[in-house]
Amino acid sequence: MTSHLILGGARSGKSRYAQTLAEAFDGDLIFIATGEAFDDEMAERIAHHRADRGPRWDTVEAPLALDEAIRARAAPGKLLLIDCLTLWVSNLMHAERDIVAATDELIAAMGDARGPVILVANEVGLGIVPDNALARRFRDEAGRVNQAVAAAANEVSFIAAGLPLRLK
Amino acid sequence: MTSHLILGGARSGKSRYAQTLAEAFDGDLIFIATGEAFDDEMAERIAHHRADRGPRWDTVEAPLALDEAIRARAAPGKLLLIDCLTLWVSNLMHAERDIVAATDELIAAMGDARGPVILVANEVGLGIVPDNALARRFRDEAGRVNQAVAAAANEVSFIAAGLPLRLK
Amino acid sequence: MTSHLILGGARSGKSRYAQTLAEAFDGDLIFIATGEAFDDEMAERIAHHRADRGPRWDTVEAPLALDEAIRARAAPGKLLLIDCLTLWVSNLMHAERDIVAATDELIAAMGDARGPVILVANEVGLGIVPDNALARRFRDEAGRVNQAVAAAANEVSFIAAGLPLRLK
Repeated sequence: MTSHLILGGARSGKSRYAQTLAEAFDGDLIFIATGEAFDDEMAERIAHHRADRGPRWDTVEAPLALDEAIRARAAPGKLLLIDCLTLWVSNLMHAERDIVAATDELIAAMGDARGPVILVANEVGLGIVPDNALARRFRDEAGRVNQAVAAAANEVSFIAAGLPLRLK
Repeated sequence: MTSHLILGGARSGKSRYAQTLAEAFDGDLIFIATGEAFDDEMAERIAHHRADRGPRWDTVEAPLALDEAIRARAAPGKLLLIDCLTLWVSNLMHAERDIVAATDELIAAMGDARGPVILVANEVGLGIVPDNALARRFRDEAGRVNQAVAAAANEVSFIAAGLPLRLK
Repeated sequence: MTSHLILGGARSGKSRYAQTLAEAFDGDLIFIATGEAFDDEMAERIAHHRADRGPRWDTVEAPLALDEAIRARAAPGKLLLIDCLTLWVSNLMHAERDIVAATDELIAAMGDARGPVILVANEVGLGIVPDNALARRFRDEAGRVNQAVAAAANEVSFIAAGLPLRLK
């Protein structure tokens, strides 16, 4: 089935765009959240987003095993929206997982899915080189995951100020 | 009348692009500057930009009341160029104003304008998450303003290395 | 002959994209590296990139005199790939050279080249304003060089997640 990667910066409207796209689907809507509430600021954002989505959505949390979350739920008549890959990369780094292997498993699960999958990711590499090595590593890992998923996805869009540019 | 939002990064050529676009207009040109000279670096940039524009332009300063600046001057035969919305957001934050309300008023004034309005804004959300909370809040506010103005504008362009990509 | 500027963020796939484009050329391939190994992290990246390119490529190093490197090697049947302009700007700043003059000389050499030239550059202006003045100056210089080279190049592409958007 089709997969669509939605890339964008912070507050670019990428999640809203992805949701609106998803809600045009005639079937069940499943939101796969990768975010974990490490602190109050994050908890507030998560609660805000969940309230925003409204009752048509089922939400599941998958901070690490994104491939399993897809395999357990992808089916004809169900749309999966994964938001977002960049928090997932951050979670994998914290948990000291193999990011290349996890990305391969994600891509395999996307390929096997028999329903549509929309994935949201942050573009984080367009500023000045970060001062600290961990931020540089995160930027590199996030960029590599974006490239790999973009190569595998059927469609890729870049969102700026809520508006899409089609990359693929 | 038409409104055109010009988005871009620092030193992307967005102001130059907006000016060139404006100078094709057969009528009066009014530059609405939102920048305030808080320090020497800023004062130097402002003076440099003003000298760059040349004698065809009238310049007015509107660090906060952008809606009033538009309502006072928009007219057939006059083009307004507002540069830039992102400094305006920063000014509103410093002055502890309600940014959502100010944005609604800006958009209403744009809608009522009977002459063309060009607006310049920075895209600031494509780097690594900033370390400090104030920078994160600024990034969020600036992104939300960009989305709201982009939704209201007739045309939206993204500038990189002086060249435009049309978003809308 | 044709020149093509490839812009993108960190880990956007811009170097890979430029290389793939170059390898479609039927002739000699010359890689002009501007990077210098100031520290271990940098040395590792350079070695990794060189191994990645494989045996079809000749590599020369030109941290400062990019115009001379182009003039010495550009010829029919030879493609030059310069990676990247943004490190070159950083090198010029460290060496306290005149960046505007060096850019003019680069552009003149590009114009005189009788073989294709591909140039890679980082877009670094799409994040929050950096805290320190040196980073702000670097961002400004890099942005100005990108604009000048983009204006002179025959083709300009922006790469995100390995995929191109054509700017020119």
